[in-house]
Amino acid sequence: MSEIPYKIYLSENEIPSAWYNVRADMKNKPAPLLNPGTGEPLKAEDLYPIFCEELSKQEMNNTDAYIDIPGEVLDFYKMYRPSPLVRAYCLEKALGTPAHIYYKFEGNNTSGSHKLNSAIAQAYYAKKQGLKGVTTETGAGQWGTALSMATAYFGLDCQVYMVKVSYEQKPFRREVMRTYGATVTPSPSMLTNVGRKINEQFPGTDGSLGCAISEAVEAATTQEGYRYVLGSVLNQVLLHQSVIGLETKAALDKVGVKADMIIGCAGGGSNLGGLISPFVGEMLRGENQYEIIAVEPASCPSFTRGSFVYDFCDTGRVCPLAKMYTLGSNFMPAPNHAGGLRYHGMSTILSQLYDEGYMKARSVKQTDVFAAAEQFARVEGILPAPESSHAIKVAIDEALKCKETGEAKNIVFGLTGTGYFDLVAYQKYNDGVMDDYIPTDEDIAASLAQCPKLG
Amino acid sequence: MSEIPYKIYLSENEIPSAWYNVRADMKNKPAPLLNPGTGEPLKAEDLYPIFCEELSKQEMNNTDAYIDIPGEVLDFYKMYRPSPLVRAYCLEKALGTPAHIYYKFEGNNTSGSHKLNSAIAQAYYAKKQGLKGVTTETGAGQWGTALSMATAYFGLDCQVYMVKVSYEQKPFRREVMRTYGATVTPSPSMLTNVGRKINEQFPGTDGSLGCAISEAVEAATTQEGYRYVLGSVLNQVLLHQSVIGLETKAALDKVGVKADMIIGCAGGGSNLGGLISPFVGEMLRGENQYEIIAVEPASCPSFTRGSFVYDFCDTGRVCPLAKMYTLGSNFMPAPNHAGGLRYHGMSTILSQLYDEGYMKARSVKQTDVFAAAEQFARVEGILPAPESSHAIKVAIDEALKCKETGEAKNIVFGLTGTGYFDLVAYQKYNDGVMDDYIPTDEDIAASLAQCPKLG
Repeated sequence: MSEIPYKIYLSENEIPSAWYNVRADMKNKPAPLLNPGTGEPLKAEDLYPIFCEELSKQEMNNTDAYIDIPGEVLDFYKMYRPSPLVRAYCLEKALGTPAHIYYKFEGNNTSGSHKLNSAIAQAYYAKKQGLKGVTTETGAGQWGTALSMATAYFGLDCQVYMVKVSYEQKPFRREVMRTYGATVTPSPSMLTNVGRKINEQFPGTDGSLGCAISEAVEAATTQEGYRYVLGSVLNQVLLHQSVIGLETKAALDKVGVKADMIIGCAGGGSNLGGLISPFVGEMLRGENQYEIIAVEPASCPSFTRGSFVYDFCDTGRVCPLAKMYTLGSNFMPAPNHAGGLRYHGMSTILSQLYDEGYMKARSVKQTDVFAAAEQFARVEGILPAPESSHAIKVAIDEALKCKETGEAKNIVFGLTGTGYFDLVAYQKYNDGVMDDYIPTDEDIAASLAQCPKLG
Repeated sequence: MSEIPYKIYLSENEIPSAWYNVRADMKNKPAPLLNPGTGEPLKAEDLYPIFCEELSKQEMNNTDAYIDIPGEVLDFYKMYRPSPLVRAYCLEKALGTPAHIYYKFEGNNTSGSHKLNSAIAQAYYAKKQGLKGVTTETGAGQWGTALSMATAYFGLDCQVYMVKVSYEQKPFRREVMRTYGATVTPSPSMLTNVGRKINEQFPGTDGSLGCAISEAVEAATTQEGYRYVLGSVLNQVLLHQSVIGLETKAALDKVGVKADMIIGCAGGGSNLGGLISPFVGEMLRGENQYEIIAVEPASCPSFTRGSFVYDFCDTGRVCPLAKMYTLGSNFMPAPNHAGGLRYHGMSTILSQLYDEGYMKARSVKQTDVFAAAEQFARVEGILPAPESSHAIKVAIDEALKCKETGEAKNIVFGLTGTGYFDLVAYQKYNDGVMDDYIPTDEDIAASLAQCPKLG
């Protein structure tokens, strides 16, 4: 038998004491956020009315390679970290591949995903600034759940605007958030001006993520002692999520394994950016080479079919402009697309790295993703989230290529979370009624045509 | 800071290599199972038509203190074991108690509970005997989910009879089982004689656990190559679950901690029996003393208000008679009782130990249990199963007593699983519409009056 255990655990004192900021090692920094009115680059202070001050500074920090993780955040991390790096012996055997497959499992906490890594940091800085609470939006519900846990821990109020159709179709997500003390409001609501206006214009609307963002931002800026927080896309989020990659690298180093290939699912980029950051750092510094693959849904293919331009971060066009791979801020993936990975754009950091060739991207069809999810669940025991299963699909594809070539590649992928709240989608797959939807070139061109003419 | 980490992990080679059979150290063995027709004690061979041969032998084995865990079961254990023993620093802080609280967390696998420890063993022996598949019943769904994972791993067919009302109200439990390849049939069904008969007698019935057991047993004994398997109550199940207690003891020894008090929830006894077995072994051999508390729901109080007599194991009265603490095989807890812990009797091993004073028992009200669950979730991050939360409730009570007395007791409890599939109950609690139901003395006396006059 191999000496490498099924689960490679670090000890608690091997949790990283600092987050890694990959921007410090990037020769070409991500393009700055722009004021949507003036087109001028934003400064940290410009973000203070919306975000906590410390988080605004992290958002703009392109120079410090390491930022200390506060002790209180580290204490919370100890409740569920280090997360295991698992050697997928059973999957390898089932595939008959000579490849060695590893996955970093971030679903080992009640929120069920990696989102908690940034939620607890954002809640900590809100508490430190003396705020009463935070507001946010949630669609699929992973982020809202993580934030509720984090704010409960620090005794902060948490107001979640949940897209109305999700609020009604995912009552269990809603109930977990309530159990953690959050107020969950279906959006559009009658609590905000923007919500009332949309309800008036579109009576009986199901809501959208864009609308929920607008309501959460309004709620943050009109209540004393509140700020808005976000679970993906932002530089600060990728910074916090670097704990995933740092632990993965430490665990691989511990057993003397060099990754050949690193695979992660990509929606806004929070997981992928966190997972790959220390590895990309080595590439940027010329120390090492890795093959990195971002996997996105064929229904929302921002890397593989989008353009690298300045665009609005939200459908409502109230947020700053960011230069990113985007499908256009009006782009909406098909409603039958299950789970997250629905964002029209991609983290500016990842967009810059992709543009410079530091990673590849691949898009995969939904039914193929669920087939891979089920195959994985049956041999590895974990019921994966649909988001994570995008990475599983490509990891299996690559392991099967190794079977053909006889290569014993070390394949590492990010298993971002569990699928307990996605069983409606599993049911559709089990019943054989799950659709694959792929947008036409015309759909994407029409949406991209509405991007602002800048950059 | 203390030297004890938040999570005390054993390494994979510290997973026990043998289960511990507490019966070997019991001076007074559990009373034998009796043939319901003749009243004669059963032999292992008498069980072969229903259970696998190896499991039938384990059921009757009162002499071997250790039984080797097969290598293939150990390999599966390595996918999710050793499970963490967690020091509940955050709960201690929130309570302001000098007590040191530890919990053994068994929810870290997709089935979400400790049931997998026995499911994989039972599936292994079925595979080894060359069977095609197994049948079982499930109510709340934890056992059916665990068994589906185990049979998927060994490529066995799995037929689950799920109480019809659960099948309809818990579609997500059903979907997980289907994802793992199990056939899930609402009970009463039209697939068995007993099912057809009940459907004819009671058109539109919601079903019951007793009926589902009868259907599963009929399905096992009328199909070539099938046997019936069960997730609690039996001696073989407590044997397999001893892995919980063995790991707990090893982890405590590793950090030099002696438990003062061990607390576990008790329905049929699978978790409690497994958790306490090595500790009770020390008590039986006169090596050590522990205070052991079984916690049961006030709505189904077999230890605290039942009688220690021979009774039927199933409502349908087709299974053997067992001497146990029982409320009578006709006893049904209130339908508003959430989660498991609904069985009318208790493991014969635990019944014998309780009768001899090796443990105490306490019953707790449902709303108090959910209040404890929510308090725990908010500080320790894990959303507990309702079953597990019975133990949490008493652990908190005991820790608060320590606060009054100033004692720094070491309190250990079993956190058997997660509550992802119990959010309907959490919602009732959050909405303030959860009832407490406590059976009257007359209810229990009437049910007990129907026990057979034996023993």
